[in-house]
Amino acid sequence: MIRKVRKNNQLREITIKKDFISHPEGSVLVAFGDTKVICNATVTEGVPPFLRDSGKGWVTAEYAMLPRATHTRNQRESKRGKPDGRSQEISRLIGRSLRAAVDFGKIGEYTVTVDCDVIQADGGTRTAAITGGYCAMHLAFQWMIKEGMIKENPITGAVSAVSVGIVMGEPMLDLEYEEDSMADVDMNLVVKNCADIVEIQGSAEKATFSRELLNKMLDLGFDGIKKLTEAQKKVTG
Amino acid sequence: MIRKVRKNNQLREITIKKDFISHPEGSVLVAFGDTKVICNATVTEGVPPFLRDSGKGWVTAEYAMLPRATHTRNQRESKRGKPDGRSQEISRLIGRSLRAAVDFGKIGEYTVTVDCDVIQADGGTRTAAITGGYCAMHLAFQWMIKEGMIKENPITGAVSAVSVGIVMGEPMLDLEYEEDSMADVDMNLVVKNCADIVEIQGSAEKATFSRELLNKMLDLGFDGIKKLTEAQKKVTG
Amino acid sequence: MIRKVRKNNQLREITIKKDFISHPEGSVLVAFGDTKVICNATVTEGVPPFLRDSGKGWVTAEYAMLPRATHTRNQRESKRGKPDGRSQEISRLIGRSLRAAVDFGKIGEYTVTVDCDVIQADGGTRTAAITGGYCAMHLAFQWMIKEGMIKENPITGAVSAVSVGIVMGEPMLDLEYEEDSMADVDMNLVVKNCADIVEIQGSAEKATFSRELLNKMLDLGFDGIKKLTEAQKKVTG
Amino acid sequence: MIRKVRKNNQLREITIKKDFISHPEGSVLVAFGDTKVICNATVTEGVPPFLRDSGKGWVTAEYAMLPRATHTRNQRESKRGKPDGRSQEISRLIGRSLRAAVDFGKIGEYTVTVDCDVIQADGGTRTAAITGGYCAMHLAFQWMIKEGMIKENPITGAVSAVSVGIVMGEPMLDLEYEEDSMADVDMNLVVKNCADIVEIQGSAEKATFSRELLNKMLDLGFDGIKKLTEAQKKVTG
Amino acid sequence: MIRKVRKNNQLREITIKKDFISHPEGSVLVAFGDTKVICNATVTEGVPPFLRDSGKGWVTAEYAMLPRATHTRNQRESKRGKPDGRSQEISRLIGRSLRAAVDFGKIGEYTVTVDCDVIQADGGTRTAAITGGYCAMHLAFQWMIKEGMIKENPITGAVSAVSVGIVMGEPMLDLEYEEDSMADVDMNLVVKNCADIVEIQGSAEKATFSRELLNKMLDLGFDGIKKLTEAQKKVTG
Amino acid sequence: MIRKVRKNNQLREITIKKDFISHPEGSVLVAFGDTKVICNATVTEGVPPFLRDSGKGWVTAEYAMLPRATHTRNQRESKRGKPDGRSQEISRLIGRSLRAAVDFGKIGEYTVTVDCDVIQADGGTRTAAITGGYCAMHLAFQWMIKEGMIKENPITGAVSAVSVGIVMGEPMLDLEYEEDSMADVDMNLVVKNCADIVEIQGSAEKATFSRELLNKMLDLGFDGIKKLTEAQKKVTG
Repeated sequence: MIRKVRKNNQLREITIKKDFISHPEGSVLVAFGDTKVICNATVTEGVPPFLRDSGKGWVTAEYAMLPRATHTRNQRESKRGKPDGRSQEISRLIGRSLRAAVDFGKIGEYTVTVDCDVIQADGGTRTAAITGGYCAMHLAFQWMIKEGMIKENPITGAVSAVSVGIVMGEPMLDLEYEEDSMADVDMNLVVKNCADIVEIQGSAEKATFSRELLNKMLDLGFDGIKKLTEAQKKVTG
Repeated sequence: MIRKVRKNNQLREITIKKDFISHPEGSVLVAFGDTKVICNATVTEGVPPFLRDSGKGWVTAEYAMLPRATHTRNQRESKRGKPDGRSQEISRLIGRSLRAAVDFGKIGEYTVTVDCDVIQADGGTRTAAITGGYCAMHLAFQWMIKEGMIKENPITGAVSAVSVGIVMGEPMLDLEYEEDSMADVDMNLVVKNCADIVEIQGSAEKATFSRELLNKMLDLGFDGIKKLTEAQKKVTG
Repeated sequence: MIRKVRKNNQLREITIKKDFISHPEGSVLVAFGDTKVICNATVTEGVPPFLRDSGKGWVTAEYAMLPRATHTRNQRESKRGKPDGRSQEISRLIGRSLRAAVDFGKIGEYTVTVDCDVIQADGGTRTAAITGGYCAMHLAFQWMIKEGMIKENPITGAVSAVSVGIVMGEPMLDLEYEEDSMADVDMNLVVKNCADIVEIQGSAEKATFSRELLNKMLDLGFDGIKKLTEAQKKVTG
Repeated sequence: MIRKVRKNNQLREITIKKDFISHPEGSVLVAFGDTKVICNATVTEGVPPFLRDSGKGWVTAEYAMLPRATHTRNQRESKRGKPDGRSQEISRLIGRSLRAAVDFGKIGEYTVTVDCDVIQADGGTRTAAITGGYCAMHLAFQWMIKEGMIKENPITGAVSAVSVGIVMGEPMLDLEYEEDSMADVDMNLVVKNCADIVEIQGSAEKATFSRELLNKMLDLGFDGIKKLTEAQKKVTG
Repeated sequence: MIRKVRKNNQLREITIKKDFISHPEGSVLVAFGDTKVICNATVTEGVPPFLRDSGKGWVTAEYAMLPRATHTRNQRESKRGKPDGRSQEISRLIGRSLRAAVDFGKIGEYTVTVDCDVIQADGGTRTAAITGGYCAMHLAFQWMIKEGMIKENPITGAVSAVSVGIVMGEPMLDLEYEEDSMADVDMNLVVKNCADIVEIQGSAEKATFSRELLNKMLDLGFDGIKKLTEAQKKVTG
Repeated sequence: MIRKVRKNNQLREITIKKDFISHPEGSVLVAFGDTKVICNATVTEGVPPFLRDSGKGWVTAEYAMLPRATHTRNQRESKRGKPDGRSQEISRLIGRSLRAAVDFGKIGEYTVTVDCDVIQADGGTRTAAITGGYCAMHLAFQWMIKEGMIKENPITGAVSAVSVGIVMGEPMLDLEYEEDSMADVDMNLVVKNCADIVEIQGSAEKATFSRELLNKMLDLGFDGIKKLTEAQKKVTG
């Protein structure tokens, strides 16, 4: 048994703090244990070129880490000259995940940009970002209703995300950094309405995995998603 | 029935042409139907900093498209100033996939760089690149043996990749560009030894998918992988 | 009288929260009213080239804003391709200010990098960053002593910073964003030991200012510095 | 006598394969011996700012190499952050050369972009690119006629290019890589209608050359141009 | 006594050569002793976005150094990929300083760009650039009047700049490079109409300074400003 | 007859002013009529990687223009983010030309960097830069002898450059900007010792040219080179 405090099918302590930053239209601080991410949603008029004059809106996301969110300091992306491949990949994943929750025909030509800035990292930053980013986006839609910009909430279902891994042969939910470092397989699962898969990304750097093991990981993941969806509801109402 | 010529569980015509370019240590031209990718493997002394003095080698990959590989022309990445997020993401996927096939303790501190340049794109460029890139890498290891740089082939199993999608409700193997554009769900599957999952990436922009549908897509994918592995064997011996 | 709640010679509410982020060697969250800055100090071995083999250490700083720290969203610097001139200028100012507080002969060839990331901006972000950055740096030196890396604290005096402006003819301490927008003159004052000027930067975009007015602003500034130094002491001991 | 198989005034085997890539409006694979270049011509509406509302069209070119087109691997330009000086210089040369063949008053405000991507390099990549690029451009104009976009072919004469060098004192036509490395003088000649000079670029890094030698090189070059023009005609009709 | 030829309150020899470059609307070569800066003012139609349709104009400045303006060669900014922080900071200072001299309501929607290129540096390059840049801008306004673009000169007062430092305890005007290297405190003073402060930037890397010393430096600086204003008048009339 | 003052075979007034900038090891201001270029040669220890431990030295060049060297202002290269293709091409040409004048076995592992910065442009900036750059380099070698770094001057012959064009059918020497704009053909000729061709670059954007015309242009060019070599001797001794 590797884990001492939590069970293998147990999430870390999940907190989602509403209105963390005052300026954004939607803002939360989400924590998955010691992983902490500021999620800010910004509403702007207009949409990307491919949607102009479609009457439809758009959601996009950007993910980044503060230099010292990690054990050792990372160079700032703005200093490196070129954006970091890992950050871009996660930004795209968050964007796709959040878009799965929205009926774009209901928001007109507005864009919601969800910034997910990791201030402290301990594994699972992308799943925390999706889970918190969903809340920030939801709050931004509530603000749009209040401002009279849209009539009804365009959310079609709650989207959240969790990681599952295989550590020393055991399937394990919501990996911390140290567990993640030891994991043979790492899978991220994005689910809508506790039932429908939005995205599944399973990757094996150290060992491959069978379909049987894949199914065990999916069982664990769906369990975690239920708890996350409850935590989201407390914030979004 | 959307497909007219192929069946839903049928691959396109697969060809892997050996020694396509003369300079690289390993080189193939892989075609999945009209998708054509030049895969060149380069052997260089030395490894990235995190492996120095470990006695172990490394495999890395770079994926790119010629500007007119697609229906309309794309701006060159070198002109854009910044590398394209999609290309970087695929490069990382190819690298992880190929590394799953290698016992790095057997190649000493050498790096094999596998360049996958798409010259004609018709869907499935990343799966073709992994399938062909594996062959180019294998040929490069054969060259290393011939040159006396290593004693035995470090390959631990054949790695290939295929896409599966849901198009108008039907699960479908190895999507062409036009099918891919209509797909609700798009999944890429990387498998080793026809049995073990190396990477699974399923993504739903237009519709979510159930676990049942996931299983059907996996069935189709594993069927395709078998055929691809046979095609690879003709090249690698 | 423009200000309603505060007096012209009064600071906003100042809080400095210790150990805000867990990984850095020194970390605080500093707030000047609604302006909030995470200040993280990182200790690394080695110094810049011009100091190598001098036996002396170095302190450097980097300042940045989260995209939605402000009323409207700013594009990320990493997306712009080139670093922002304003951010670089402030980073250099913070670095110079903090170095004025340190006897580098006492820390050996270590570098302390102080990251100041503004999560919420309401005027005075650079002065908050210097005041909080000093605390983060101080805590990092305490950590170095505890770890046995240095013998005594190299701090030679407390350094803090405050802004003073002329708004509608009246000198005013510690400007909020709205006041800053109306100001004819904006001055930032960095002071050591409540008495000695480290840096003075006064700038008049809308109106010039006489030496008499400069002196009035200095009087206000020195008053504010005293209060800030007291707030720092509670954190640094 | 350095050359064993070819004579000094003999070209390598020249092949120009039509319709090599399926998407572009014009496409060839040109080979000068082991030098192989994919030339793709793309037709787009609109012209650069300096030609807007002139009623005239434009031709531009971009030249690049695959990383492993050469004996050792070159870093990708997109990774270097800045475009390579040599590639830019050759791109400009190809553009100027191709424009010399076109009556822009006859194509309206269309731009033809000719991408020349070297997949295998063995000397003379720029001359192969011009010679093949001319064919790709010609095919694109034929496509425009077929599509009813223009009425007559705007080509005013065939443009091709060849290199001539001085190797160990002997003038030599169409240098391979190894010959080029030994050459004292390297000259590239672009000629229209087998008679008129479009561009002459002669450069002596190791030894200077007299006007007499220049004339001998020109004689050789014009001989080669005749053969290249014949090869082009088989493709363009 | 450190200075041998000049007194502590004495400027270096100041020369401002009119019409140094022929193309710009205003051009001078300014010399503060061995520091030489080419200042060219360019008039263009249009203003930055935040001023469009305001009826008001704008002044902006760019500062740079030739690579060998200094004792040792600096890498070109265009080669570094990213602009240099110090150059950007000085460009912003020059822009703010020159704008303080102009009534923008009088020039319509024109932008004057003042390029200050240091060809030889010996301390005080930013103060020379402001002093000379003012003249170039003034000449450009005279040209606009002559061309009938504006009716009256929009200048509201002469702006010039000078440095003052503390070297070995002594306040000293207009520091040369060698003096600057030894200085404990370095202050730049930008003044309008010999009386009103536009910008004050005092910085102490090696030692802090008291308010008393600040006042002594201001006395010296204002003396120097008078002489500079006289030199400017000879050029601007 | 287009030219009124000069004859078609006449150079503009050529002046080469020695020691224009004080810091460089060699410095001249070269003027070809109204074209003015500052040429500064910098000597540094060490050579590029491909020459290390060869005992041989290197010469390299960088060419750039001040933003307002031209009739209208050009954006600074450092602002564009990427270096300008034309500047890079000319930098490479100058480097090759100057290297043709040097016996690298005689200077040990030193690099001479020749910066050619155009402060005023009126056609022929690259030929002026080569002609002046040769002088700056020669002066730097004289400085190296004086400093005891090398024993004898490594110059093997004087290198200069001139442009020749075809304007309205007439061959014409040393084109001014206005003539250059009207030219059908533009050729740059770099010659060593008044007799040997180092580089020939002839380009026809508007009209092609026959071998006969090429010979006439060469006659004119060699005449001009003689005069330039005389002007160089007055500076280099």
